[in-house]
Amino acid sequence: MQKIDLLIKNGLVLDFEQKTEVKDVAIDDGKIIAVGKDLKNYDPLKVIEAQNKIVVPGFANTHTHAGMSYFKGLADDLPLMKWLTKFIWPTEKAFLSPKFVYDAALIGCAEMVKNGITIFNDMYFFGEQTAKAAEKVGIRAILGEGVLDAPVANYQKADEIFSYIKKMNEKFKEHELIDFAIAPHAIYTCGKENLIKAKDLAEKLDLLLHIHLSETRQEVEDCIKKHGMRPAQYLNSFGFFEGKVIAAHAIWLDEKEQEILANNDVSIAINTSSNLKLASGFDSFKSYIDHNVNLSIATDSVASNNNLSIIEEMSLTAKLQKVLNDDPTVLPAKQMVKIATLDGAKALDKSAYLGSIQIGKKADLILVDIDNIESQPLYDPFSHLVYSLSSEQIKDVIINGKMIMENRKLLNVDENELIEKARYYHDRIEKFTSS
Amino acid sequence: MQKIDLLIKNGLVLDFEQKTEVKDVAIDDGKIIAVGKDLKNYDPLKVIEAQNKIVVPGFANTHTHAGMSYFKGLADDLPLMKWLTKFIWPTEKAFLSPKFVYDAALIGCAEMVKNGITIFNDMYFFGEQTAKAAEKVGIRAILGEGVLDAPVANYQKADEIFSYIKKMNEKFKEHELIDFAIAPHAIYTCGKENLIKAKDLAEKLDLLLHIHLSETRQEVEDCIKKHGMRPAQYLNSFGFFEGKVIAAHAIWLDEKEQEILANNDVSIAINTSSNLKLASGFDSFKSYIDHNVNLSIATDSVASNNNLSIIEEMSLTAKLQKVLNDDPTVLPAKQMVKIATLDGAKALDKSAYLGSIQIGKKADLILVDIDNIESQPLYDPFSHLVYSLSSEQIKDVIINGKMIMENRKLLNVDENELIEKARYYHDRIEKFTSS
Repeated sequence: MQKIDLLIKNGLVLDFEQKTEVKDVAIDDGKIIAVGKDLKNYDPLKVIEAQNKIVVPGFANTHTHAGMSYFKGLADDLPLMKWLTKFIWPTEKAFLSPKFVYDAALIGCAEMVKNGITIFNDMYFFGEQTAKAAEKVGIRAILGEGVLDAPVANYQKADEIFSYIKKMNEKFKEHELIDFAIAPHAIYTCGKENLIKAKDLAEKLDLLLHIHLSETRQEVEDCIKKHGMRPAQYLNSFGFFEGKVIAAHAIWLDEKEQEILANNDVSIAINTSSNLKLASGFDSFKSYIDHNVNLSIATDSVASNNNLSIIEEMSLTAKLQKVLNDDPTVLPAKQMVKIATLDGAKALDKSAYLGSIQIGKKADLILVDIDNIESQPLYDPFSHLVYSLSSEQIKDVIINGKMIMENRKLLNVDENELIEKARYYHDRIEKFTSS
Repeated sequence: MQKIDLLIKNGLVLDFEQKTEVKDVAIDDGKIIAVGKDLKNYDPLKVIEAQNKIVVPGFANTHTHAGMSYFKGLADDLPLMKWLTKFIWPTEKAFLSPKFVYDAALIGCAEMVKNGITIFNDMYFFGEQTAKAAEKVGIRAILGEGVLDAPVANYQKADEIFSYIKKMNEKFKEHELIDFAIAPHAIYTCGKENLIKAKDLAEKLDLLLHIHLSETRQEVEDCIKKHGMRPAQYLNSFGFFEGKVIAAHAIWLDEKEQEILANNDVSIAINTSSNLKLASGFDSFKSYIDHNVNLSIATDSVASNNNLSIIEEMSLTAKLQKVLNDDPTVLPAKQMVKIATLDGAKALDKSAYLGSIQIGKKADLILVDIDNIESQPLYDPFSHLVYSLSSEQIKDVIINGKMIMENRKLLNVDENELIEKARYYHDRIEKFTSS
């Protein structure tokens, strides 16, 4: 009998290749070491009885701003520029500090785990604080430190940010859960010089590049006016896509740009809720799929979503794409779940060891309860996940082989403390914005 | 001290007119008898401590097919006609019986209460069975008996259905929760003769008329071909809208048709999830609002949604309408909640006594928990309801002054029995459709 850390018994194990059926999953030293029916030869430290549960690969949330968690619902139903200039930017200016970012990211990470997210790809400032929050909660994180030409947070120049990234990359190099990345904010806030510096540094340190791309029609029009070409063409013109790039939003790309992305293995982070809520627009992602662009799913920040539910994003994205393409067969449920898990891991350059329930991969799993009336009847677990469920049926979350949430209780943080702290900031922010 | 049935203490009471603030709600004999701060002069049989809860008027789900509950997720991501002809219609033909409809409607009603729905407007067959299921669960229901020219369920001719409606109307006349209605299925399944008969009977008995209208582009094109005019014009041409009509879907109406609806006080049941998932289409409801058409929110059946979450429908509808109108100020959260409650009650001709938390109205209320990390921070309860929450935060449901769900446990049905029965039907339906 081989001693192992964890055995998940009798769960309905999602499989993208083979039949999804009731199996056991054996986990040791953070990894999946066996998947099969009625596994016998193990002596587990802990057993999870997963009868009437679906075992799902953890969701990859590929575009977030966890440090903005306290701005959830601060101001809604407003034009983008009014929202930014009257609420978000002044509030950030007044409140942003390492401590604020840590506190906000902590509740953000906690909420992500509650939504079945096991890795997130962030873009914000004070990345070390978000790294510490993720470490505390026990979730994987890629911290893209925001690069802008203008002064940000506590840095006057982009070069200081690059130095910070080098330092952080060194500091967290061996960390099991944390990576750093370089996040030039967008082509309209980061000039060619800094975009090239970012790309060069990313290549040197083998880091991901994370950028907002073609989120609004305005961005495209301005780019054409200024550079004589569209945003993806512009970035391509000086080799930005030679790096490992994930582009967030990307809803205003023409087919030629889609080809550029595909040829350069650039992945897209789809943010449907945010794009609709801010009235930024939408695009047919069927065309992106036809051009072989790798897609992934993201929530954006709670300031423009206003939650962190990947299940809601899957449902919304799949449904919207069907009607946009006048074809209900577009983005079927199984493909949608794959985009939110395995393809998300691929977008983050981690599909070799994340994103599916396979021997040798890291044990990042979520257990979804189907023993409730909302889950009846259940003909197809993929359809059920995308179209029927809400995040509350996600009961247990395992990351790197460790239980992070058990029966919806987070194990590494005190939820009441998070609530109290959020109310503390709420009162101060509300007072500030209403004055 | 006045003896009363129920006192809800210290809840954040949603108000469409005045400020939403912490208040008490006093309930007696099924009605709201007082709303105010720190109510003193009552001696309640039961007190609900609603601190950290939002008190919301119950949701009105204005277009459902509760008898189809066992077809949830039976077949997804398929073209409409393949879905109907290969799965839904043959399965209905094989399984439909009074007992099947009762069982399916029972779990459907249970799931509706779990989603905060306190009244639903159904269209299906064997209405008495659905009425009994609603009565058992304790939810208000309007049972629109489906009228088609072709034989349905156990009726060969529409005249038999009209007789059944008369009988049922008589039988349930004094029932506190149940009304019957007449539901001509659609203009392409119900000819002018039966549409007129339905309208005449509805006027005679003072019943609602409930019809599918302009759900697909095909329906409009066929109508123009056959009748030389668009569907709403066609119905108007022989006075159908003289009745009290609620039209489900209605996403392919031109402005002239929108005017016809407004002039005749016809309300619309919006079914965004179903319209997107089946790729039926979408329309800008801003134009309907500008034409003064009363809007309401519906889930359609779980066969094409695949859940019964009004919160999801509010979120989806508000977001989609913003992007369609290129304007994030369209359908702000407060208006969206009003559409899902008070305007829904108006669509069902019941706004005089349902749909808002006001003295004299029936006590149909839901209590929404905000003492969780997903609800932090909370700046605006309307925004929170529409954009942040899921149905699982709905903890308690009160209908007609009675507790129907307490801390997410249904009080009038055994949920385990519902689950077992659903699994029984699941196995039989799966066997039938895969053979």
